[in-house]
Amino acid sequence: MDDEKAIRELYATWHRATAAGDLATVLGLMSDDVIFLTPGAQPFGKKAFADLNESLAKKIRIESRFEFGEIAIHGDWAHVWSRLWVTMVPLKGGAATHRSGHTLSILRKEGGKWVLARDANLLAPDPHPQ
Amino acid sequence: MDDEKAIRELYATWHRATAAGDLATVLGLMSDDVIFLTPGAQPFGKKAFADLNESLAKKIRIESRFEFGEIAIHGDWAHVWSRLWVTMVPLKGGAATHRSGHTLSILRKEGGKWVLARDANLLAPDPHPQ
Repeated sequence: MDDEKAIRELYATWHRATAAGDLATVLGLMSDDVIFLTPGAQPFGKKAFADLNESLAKKIRIESRFEFGEIAIHGDWAHVWSRLWVTMVPLKGGAATHRSGHTLSILRKEGGKWVLARDANLLAPDPHPQ
Repeated sequence: MDDEKAIRELYATWHRATAAGDLATVLGLMSDDVIFLTPGAQPFGKKAFADLNESLAKKIRIESRFEFGEIAIHGDWAHVWSRLWVTMVPLKGGAATHRSGHTLSILRKEGGKWVLARDANLLAPDPHPQ
């Protein structure tokens, strides 16, 4: 399977597993030393990502879709930017909230498998969700 | 000059030139196909960066400082994340505004010179500037 196809599949799997609440699969798509950068927060890693998502999964269901802006492969490294739309639906009812924006990510090929290694998430509240 | 040293110098030059209002120097530190990603906006390139900064330079002076989180070099590509503090001082007086946060950037070596190629800017308003 070629590298670009593998990276496209990684993103599709990420979104499918997130929608299904399958955190174990999502954690398997990132390196152990992954770093997440978000606005207004300190950088965080895999354990904090897992804790945050376990906590959220008790309160909301996540629906998301994405479009690739660029997939650029440099040997065993790649950078990817994408546009992302996320809807968070409260499990107990009530209004859904919407966020959209871009991500810039660094991926690394580890033992033949692409994983997310660095991720900048620029999502902002979206008053006009599509 | 080694690659990491060249990248450190690129960032230092960027901040010095920005503080001095030397837009030509800043534009020389990025590739012609650079892409900037910011929260709540569409991706934009070199021309829009120049237009925005020319417009801002008539109204404010920018002071900034940064710390590197990581400089990772992969041949002719690199990724860098940093923490950034920016103060915008109105030229006509009035209160300065502060923003801080992280950046994740992709750099490329072009003809022996490192330039910024992709940049995700996660800065948010900073109510407690350091």
